[in-house]
Amino acid sequence: MLDVGIVGASGYTGVELVRILATHPQVRLTVATSRQYAGKTIAEVFPSLNKRIDLCLENHSVDELISRADFFFAAVPHKTAMDIVPQLLAAGKKVVDLSADYRLHDQAVYEKWYQPHSSPELLAEAVYGLPELYREDIRRARLVANPGCYPTSVILALGPLLRAGFLEPTSIIIDSKSGTSGAGRAASAANLYCEVADSFKAYKVGGTHRHIPEIEQELSLAAKHDVRVSFTPHLLPLSRGILSTIYATLSEAGNNADLHKLYNDIYASEPFVRVLPAGQQPATQHVRGSNCCDIALERDHRTGRIIITSAIDNIGKGASGQAVQNMNVMNGFAEETGLMGAAFFP
Amino acid sequence: MLDVGIVGASGYTGVELVRILATHPQVRLTVATSRQYAGKTIAEVFPSLNKRIDLCLENHSVDELISRADFFFAAVPHKTAMDIVPQLLAAGKKVVDLSADYRLHDQAVYEKWYQPHSSPELLAEAVYGLPELYREDIRRARLVANPGCYPTSVILALGPLLRAGFLEPTSIIIDSKSGTSGAGRAASAANLYCEVADSFKAYKVGGTHRHIPEIEQELSLAAKHDVRVSFTPHLLPLSRGILSTIYATLSEAGNNADLHKLYNDIYASEPFVRVLPAGQQPATQHVRGSNCCDIALERDHRTGRIIITSAIDNIGKGASGQAVQNMNVMNGFAEETGLMGAAFFP
Amino acid sequence: MLDVGIVGASGYTGVELVRILATHPQVRLTVATSRQYAGKTIAEVFPSLNKRIDLCLENHSVDELISRADFFFAAVPHKTAMDIVPQLLAAGKKVVDLSADYRLHDQAVYEKWYQPHSSPELLAEAVYGLPELYREDIRRARLVANPGCYPTSVILALGPLLRAGFLEPTSIIIDSKSGTSGAGRAASAANLYCEVADSFKAYKVGGTHRHIPEIEQELSLAAKHDVRVSFTPHLLPLSRGILSTIYATLSEAGNNADLHKLYNDIYASEPFVRVLPAGQQPATQHVRGSNCCDIALERDHRTGRIIITSAIDNIGKGASGQAVQNMNVMNGFAEETGLMGAAFFP
Amino acid sequence: MLDVGIVGASGYTGVELVRILATHPQVRLTVATSRQYAGKTIAEVFPSLNKRIDLCLENHSVDELISRADFFFAAVPHKTAMDIVPQLLAAGKKVVDLSADYRLHDQAVYEKWYQPHSSPELLAEAVYGLPELYREDIRRARLVANPGCYPTSVILALGPLLRAGFLEPTSIIIDSKSGTSGAGRAASAANLYCEVADSFKAYKVGGTHRHIPEIEQELSLAAKHDVRVSFTPHLLPLSRGILSTIYATLSEAGNNADLHKLYNDIYASEPFVRVLPAGQQPATQHVRGSNCCDIALERDHRTGRIIITSAIDNIGKGASGQAVQNMNVMNGFAEETGLMGAAFFP
Repeated sequence: MLDVGIVGASGYTGVELVRILATHPQVRLTVATSRQYAGKTIAEVFPSLNKRIDLCLENHSVDELISRADFFFAAVPHKTAMDIVPQLLAAGKKVVDLSADYRLHDQAVYEKWYQPHSSPELLAEAVYGLPELYREDIRRARLVANPGCYPTSVILALGPLLRAGFLEPTSIIIDSKSGTSGAGRAASAANLYCEVADSFKAYKVGGTHRHIPEIEQELSLAAKHDVRVSFTPHLLPLSRGILSTIYATLSEAGNNADLHKLYNDIYASEPFVRVLPAGQQPATQHVRGSNCCDIALERDHRTGRIIITSAIDNIGKGASGQAVQNMNVMNGFAEETGLMGAAFFP
Repeated sequence: MLDVGIVGASGYTGVELVRILATHPQVRLTVATSRQYAGKTIAEVFPSLNKRIDLCLENHSVDELISRADFFFAAVPHKTAMDIVPQLLAAGKKVVDLSADYRLHDQAVYEKWYQPHSSPELLAEAVYGLPELYREDIRRARLVANPGCYPTSVILALGPLLRAGFLEPTSIIIDSKSGTSGAGRAASAANLYCEVADSFKAYKVGGTHRHIPEIEQELSLAAKHDVRVSFTPHLLPLSRGILSTIYATLSEAGNNADLHKLYNDIYASEPFVRVLPAGQQPATQHVRGSNCCDIALERDHRTGRIIITSAIDNIGKGASGQAVQNMNVMNGFAEETGLMGAAFFP
Repeated sequence: MLDVGIVGASGYTGVELVRILATHPQVRLTVATSRQYAGKTIAEVFPSLNKRIDLCLENHSVDELISRADFFFAAVPHKTAMDIVPQLLAAGKKVVDLSADYRLHDQAVYEKWYQPHSSPELLAEAVYGLPELYREDIRRARLVANPGCYPTSVILALGPLLRAGFLEPTSIIIDSKSGTSGAGRAASAANLYCEVADSFKAYKVGGTHRHIPEIEQELSLAAKHDVRVSFTPHLLPLSRGILSTIYATLSEAGNNADLHKLYNDIYASEPFVRVLPAGQQPATQHVRGSNCCDIALERDHRTGRIIITSAIDNIGKGASGQAVQNMNVMNGFAEETGLMGAAFFP
Repeated sequence: MLDVGIVGASGYTGVELVRILATHPQVRLTVATSRQYAGKTIAEVFPSLNKRIDLCLENHSVDELISRADFFFAAVPHKTAMDIVPQLLAAGKKVVDLSADYRLHDQAVYEKWYQPHSSPELLAEAVYGLPELYREDIRRARLVANPGCYPTSVILALGPLLRAGFLEPTSIIIDSKSGTSGAGRAASAANLYCEVADSFKAYKVGGTHRHIPEIEQELSLAAKHDVRVSFTPHLLPLSRGILSTIYATLSEAGNNADLHKLYNDIYASEPFVRVLPAGQQPATQHVRGSNCCDIALERDHRTGRIIITSAIDNIGKGASGQAVQNMNVMNGFAEETGLMGAAFFP
């Protein structure tokens, strides 16, 4: 049994980690921190976990916690993560960091989109935690930077086409839509039920969302040249789910290729990526609560474009599910352990 | 491994059975029938189950199917169930029937609220499938009548008070609210998204819902005298979830009793019934997708009434989750096998 | 043209007043206050009102505003209202107060459920603003106390039966369900989209909600004796709408009466109260955005109870719509002016 | 008073016409047809209109109805409209047709995307009913083809840029999202509450939606050269609302222009088109139930693209609101009569 700690267990990604780990057969959750709810049991704060986990939330420093677990999830906001992760590593622990702090390889890019980095020396070591791309590196990693939710939906969808050289490099437009849990659990007027329900809108329009450098880093690595994208996020009246609709112009090689075969070959043995048959479209409902990413490809013969759609649960494959997948890989567990539950329907 | 068949696998309760059984370690799903989708794989009809189960839906007669499984769920409407269950039993199979056909012990009552019964001789044998009440009978049963969704939420909530003799017998009023999945998956104008979303209403007002005789049968058995209730169901703009708010006048004995202790004692060792601490109220969100029933008790000192609230997932503890729980008991499996997943939040 | 001011224009009831008044042909909105958004135009804060009203939100004291309007709505929380209303009256203005501060006739009752009252001398003068009951008093009033949302749905539904003496006095149970806009627009974790959507629960169970004394005051006046009720509010995953399901035991006289005729006679000429034909149930969708209250009556012959259901929009007839109706009556305008818009469907 | 008839009054666009006309001061609704509900009053079928309109739905032939109104709305599906409109015109009536049958000027294009046209001689006469573009033609028209919902959101958003020659002609990508009322009121399993709620997906991906030729016709007229677009519709878990997110590459002239000024100048005097200030994004909530179209412009300096977002109510400005606007123009009424109601919030 692996003793696991969660730093930041009372946010939406934190409680999802708790939920998944509660039925994971090779893990024991021994530490869960929360500033806001310290002293309360998890079941008091999250009644859904009543009779499923018996643990008290704490607000101790990393120093005090560090001996009580062998493996840690950092589920705190960026900037806060930078203050914790180096300590955990220094004490010999392995870490999956769910924040953005170690996702970008280039310190200058990080500092342009976020703020100064206090442990830039770790950027080279940190592995980008998308197991479908970097499984072997993750297996050997001490520090895995868990991908952002939007980037996960985009990179899994576009990677195969870019690696194959099938796209016009400047043609990529990504129109993404996310449920509101991505905004977190802090009190807010903008995210009140009455402001989100019965509505739909775009936000951070014009190339300003912080997931852009992360998307471009990984797409550029796939394409082996610089890729720049247009990316527009939207807010769905849903708690969970991301659907990305991606437009790109096919190169001549792409136009002549069997794209479904390409994707089916690449993802055939992946338990969490599902390439849909022609004519079927992913829906957020079919991945909700799961660690799956569903992908569809359609050509628009009138314009020579391809439209790739991909759906994930932003808290599942887009955060906590993927974090547990990474933990499994880092610890030699079967990769799908604890993650094979399907979305319930309806 | 137990080979299991589902008759009626493409309705909402059918697909939930498939989902639960897909990760059940002691069961192999070998047969799943559907008139509408025969010939398609489950994954084609329910993309959420893609890469999770590999089985084709069929439309064969019971005769043709019967040898291919040892245990059957009948997940078809009442009246249709009566045509299938006797055949399955005659072939030596054990059955959990999710319809209303074998829930009422009294043929006359059944025929008053439903229609003529074609196998009334089975009514005496069938066990009412609420494991928290009838666990030992279920263990020995060939035929278990899985309870209705509303009745499950009511009987677990009121049973302890009635068994203890703590209520004025004519005082019970049950105001229940259900998500719309209870209405099933048939094409319908009344259940279109646009007709249900953004709305809330009562239906079958005035003591006309068919779950009333089932509720009264079990409450009367608990009270050891006839109990008659007012019951009003409502339609929530939700897919899943039932919340029942139950009002009753406490007898003098009830007024002096420690009711939280009563409930805590009765349900302490039950994995699926959770009595909430004073001041906390159940919410459908905390049981969604799970097999749990959350119960709270509050006294109204101004009126001498007690208000009991209980929440279940109408497809979980209210149908398919409970059906699997019954299957576990009938087959000597650990009762909670496959059912310990908690509701995800949010 | 009547010059009208709104104190507290940026809450949910405030902006609904603005919306209704924007098309009211006999009114000019000249003052609208907001502490939080002072200096912004209404259209900046509420884009729905762009090109519909051109007015700036201000944060001036009542002294500074008072000369700029002849009629005021106080749309601020209770306790804050007490600080403003006496000033407005002293300056000779007429006022509709949407808070609870002047609804209860008995100072002791107010102070038991709320806090000390700073202008108790006005309680005797204030008219309870339910035009269907107190139209003539409202016509002559300087100060109208606009009813609470739950009480409006209950009093219109129960009043005729109580006035006729058709109910057993201790038998009344009110199970009410409200959309979440009733909780207001303040930043809050409990009312985030993710906490309210996909869920349903009761709150303030056990006779503790502050609308109880208001309901009992008006029901007692109708019955001409003290009435005590059980009242349980619930939170719906909706922005707008209240449905109250009310249970009571009919007296012998009630049992023999034609109740539909009773209600139809009383409400026939009311433009905003609609008695539904037998068999039809009110739905919040059909009153959303309107000033209507829909009422249905069904007997439960098995238990001798009557079940009355009533639906309103909690911000419409439950707050701002009713407030404008009161303003119309107080100023001699046709009562339905500006309020005849029907709920859109779907 | 203009006597008005609605052919097809019981669909979602039909009932919205009824709702708007019920408070229109210059119109009397004298005929409303429905095959399904003939013989029932409008209030029986749509309880929201109880005490607001007193009219019976009928199922008479056009011959029988034609003398009872001077002006007709055809709110029936395409193909059915072709059978009715010529008769109405032949009898000297003016018509707004809400179907697609007279929107396309080119018979061949119509027949490629729909089916053979039975009255192609009317295509040249029919005026495309977007008053912001064709107000003078509409004023003189006998037959107005009311635009599709998606096209309305796109043409108002893109028209100014194309007329100014500010876009690269092959660069336009339109990612549109619509509420589910667009799918109509027919019984359907795919549009059940449980299938649409909690989900989001694309449909008709790859350039196959029938609104494409309509969009391209109008954009080509604006640009004065052929425009071909990528268009992907999505289904939102909302009853009402369309948001289109439109991407295009700016030409050099476009890059140097003040685009906000361009839009503000064009739409300044339009009562129903609102250009948002920089930094504000349209939301479907702010136009719901209204006849407004909200438009925002943002440049993406990293890619040289412009992103235009526009929001309408698909039943309001996208159908019935616009149809009444056309009726107003055709009859010399003030264009905004009956249409100035703002969306309620929340």
